[in-house]
Amino acid sequence: MTVYLLTIGDEILIGQIVDTNSAWMSRALNQRGFRVYGKSSVADTPEAIREGLELGARHADVVILTGGLGPTKDDVTKKTLADYFDSGMSFHQETYDNIAAYFEKVGRPMPDSMVAQATLPDKAVILPNKVGSAQGMWFELAGKVYVSLPGVPFEMEYLMNRQVIPRLVERFPGKPIAHRTLLTAGAGESTIAKRLEAFEDNLPDHIKLAYLPNLGQVRLRLTGTWDGESGPAAEARLAADLDAQKAALHTLVADLVYGEEADSLEQALGRLLLERGLQFGTAESCTGGYIAHLITSVPGASAYFPGTIVSYSYEMKTKLLGVKPDTLATFGAVSAETVQEMALGALDTLEVDIALAVSGIAGPDGGTPDKPVGTVWMAVADRDRVITARHVFARDRLKNIQLTAVYGLDLVRRFLLGKVY
Amino acid sequence: MTVYLLTIGDEILIGQIVDTNSAWMSRALNQRGFRVYGKSSVADTPEAIREGLELGARHADVVILTGGLGPTKDDVTKKTLADYFDSGMSFHQETYDNIAAYFEKVGRPMPDSMVAQATLPDKAVILPNKVGSAQGMWFELAGKVYVSLPGVPFEMEYLMNRQVIPRLVERFPGKPIAHRTLLTAGAGESTIAKRLEAFEDNLPDHIKLAYLPNLGQVRLRLTGTWDGESGPAAEARLAADLDAQKAALHTLVADLVYGEEADSLEQALGRLLLERGLQFGTAESCTGGYIAHLITSVPGASAYFPGTIVSYSYEMKTKLLGVKPDTLATFGAVSAETVQEMALGALDTLEVDIALAVSGIAGPDGGTPDKPVGTVWMAVADRDRVITARHVFARDRLKNIQLTAVYGLDLVRRFLLGKVY
Repeated sequence: MTVYLLTIGDEILIGQIVDTNSAWMSRALNQRGFRVYGKSSVADTPEAIREGLELGARHADVVILTGGLGPTKDDVTKKTLADYFDSGMSFHQETYDNIAAYFEKVGRPMPDSMVAQATLPDKAVILPNKVGSAQGMWFELAGKVYVSLPGVPFEMEYLMNRQVIPRLVERFPGKPIAHRTLLTAGAGESTIAKRLEAFEDNLPDHIKLAYLPNLGQVRLRLTGTWDGESGPAAEARLAADLDAQKAALHTLVADLVYGEEADSLEQALGRLLLERGLQFGTAESCTGGYIAHLITSVPGASAYFPGTIVSYSYEMKTKLLGVKPDTLATFGAVSAETVQEMALGALDTLEVDIALAVSGIAGPDGGTPDKPVGTVWMAVADRDRVITARHVFARDRLKNIQLTAVYGLDLVRRFLLGKVY
Repeated sequence: MTVYLLTIGDEILIGQIVDTNSAWMSRALNQRGFRVYGKSSVADTPEAIREGLELGARHADVVILTGGLGPTKDDVTKKTLADYFDSGMSFHQETYDNIAAYFEKVGRPMPDSMVAQATLPDKAVILPNKVGSAQGMWFELAGKVYVSLPGVPFEMEYLMNRQVIPRLVERFPGKPIAHRTLLTAGAGESTIAKRLEAFEDNLPDHIKLAYLPNLGQVRLRLTGTWDGESGPAAEARLAADLDAQKAALHTLVADLVYGEEADSLEQALGRLLLERGLQFGTAESCTGGYIAHLITSVPGASAYFPGTIVSYSYEMKTKLLGVKPDTLATFGAVSAETVQEMALGALDTLEVDIALAVSGIAGPDGGTPDKPVGTVWMAVADRDRVITARHVFARDRLKNIQLTAVYGLDLVRRFLLGKVY
């Protein structure tokens, strides 16, 4: 089964917003084994929307539209859909009551425009939206399915997860498909691929391995499809096959794996710290607080994270972290010696069990022949030992900072697990 | 003149990457007065690419393709373009030498695949790429222009800025168009729109005002187009008209404007601190280092930013910032009293002239009836005075953190300028 995605709205065509919805939808549909044939963005006009519907239906079994349903949008999309499907429009009391309940819940007065939001094409199956005022709509015409969703990302995601995907799975029962994802940090795609050559060659035909790299991390996704009969027995067999391959894959990259599925490195590290009852802190120079930001982006981080010293100047490295002026003078701020003293100082200052310190040259200026832009030293210390690592990232300022954070958090994880490379 | 954008690549259709290129291109083209009719993403196959070209040419004067030109892409795009324009392919020694010079410059060995990268359709005007190996190509057929660009964002941007836009402006000389942008923080779109009602009503027909909101900031963009004759005299008159309107607009929102054109709040604040010779530091609780990250994302921030205390725990607020345990016990961590003491403590600990302190409930948990999730207190202090402000953002955790950072940085800016609201 194939899908065509249609995004409606001038905001996208003038570049005011980046279309993240269609990437999210593509991933969600692919996960279920539905192929996205193509996608396009069109203006808020009846002609452009109608043409997009025709284009989509020519190529795919299902056309999913997002956007154009807000209360200030003059209803162009809804009216165009009603015309396209030759449908009248009526006021839906039940939908109106649902919208009223939504406004009640979020504690905001209900605007007059909600009467229009509850006036919908008669031929649509309404997909109730409990997190906003624009309802989803499902149409069928000449064997094709058309779904219209609001453009607000979390409303679209809510309706895709609760309504659209379950209905599509029922309407287009296909081969069983399932995924298993391992998350790795600390090695690049080509390094991992070399290690997994034999594993990939020996995979059965119905299981494929994909590499999904992103800034110092690589997700390894196994996708299994079942060509024979469908039904619960086939799905269970596919799940067992995938679990076996995942276990085999895991043993080959165990030193790199930090989590599974939708995990993040900072969540995985947080869990590890919680399990061990350890307090963790950071001493940051080149990352300027970015590592602390990642740690504290996880709800509940205060249970294991009391704080951070961002020591951007020599003086603060000395005053707050006890780095010796001699060390800075002799070895420089970007050195094994300095990050060691920063990490040990952070243990005392932040009163933590384990500390990460980083110091580097994020760029674009400040590089020298033996310490080029992107050179980063990092150290992890507890009361018993301290280890250091050096990297040269050589990207732009922001990416150097992000890569330092990923490699730093991963070094702490390895230190805790005794898997330092 | 209208443009159609065509993005080539399976990575986009499976949702592995978000298409940021087409938003960037839409903005760049709109700035020049070129309208983007629509855009679509297609698979890496000759049929899909050909169909995309036909679709684009049906609706627009210019079709711009991105992607599908990498050395590992099997040349599908290039061969499809050669077929479409009925063109042979030849090896270009000059292009090969340019690619060799590029690899020499970045210090990497040149792969064998570069012979293929230098083999190009004869009917293409080559747009030389100095920042990568895939060249841009410009074709003309039946009065339409087709441009093919690499998909790597900075290579695409390089070629758009240096080659494509100047050539389009020459090929499709249109009405003079120009923009002036003022950047504001501290008020929402609807508040600003109310204040600018009379200004908007009195704008001459050839100048329009657009509101571009983004997380606590609103960009105000004046766009002027000239309907009469073109040429330097008309452009100069348009520039003078726009400058006059920008000055009038500025007086109406002077308290909100922090910069112009492509500035950022953290850059504007950095300049102000540099000009005044002031050292600045932050004491962060709910933002967990995110404000420090923004400040240090600006190259050269070390000249005015020695560091930050992220005090996520009560103990660190007391130990490192001197907040009194009594204050925390009586008023709580999220209170005017606590952020005042944090800011004053940061002046001493970080040895700075001015400090920002924030403490709030980022969510999703931790809210109470009188301090709901999203409640944030912030304080700015120097040696003479301290001010506080309270906000309730009520978004998700990450957006609450980002909004706190924007309002916090803006409060420092206003404090320095004596424009506190």
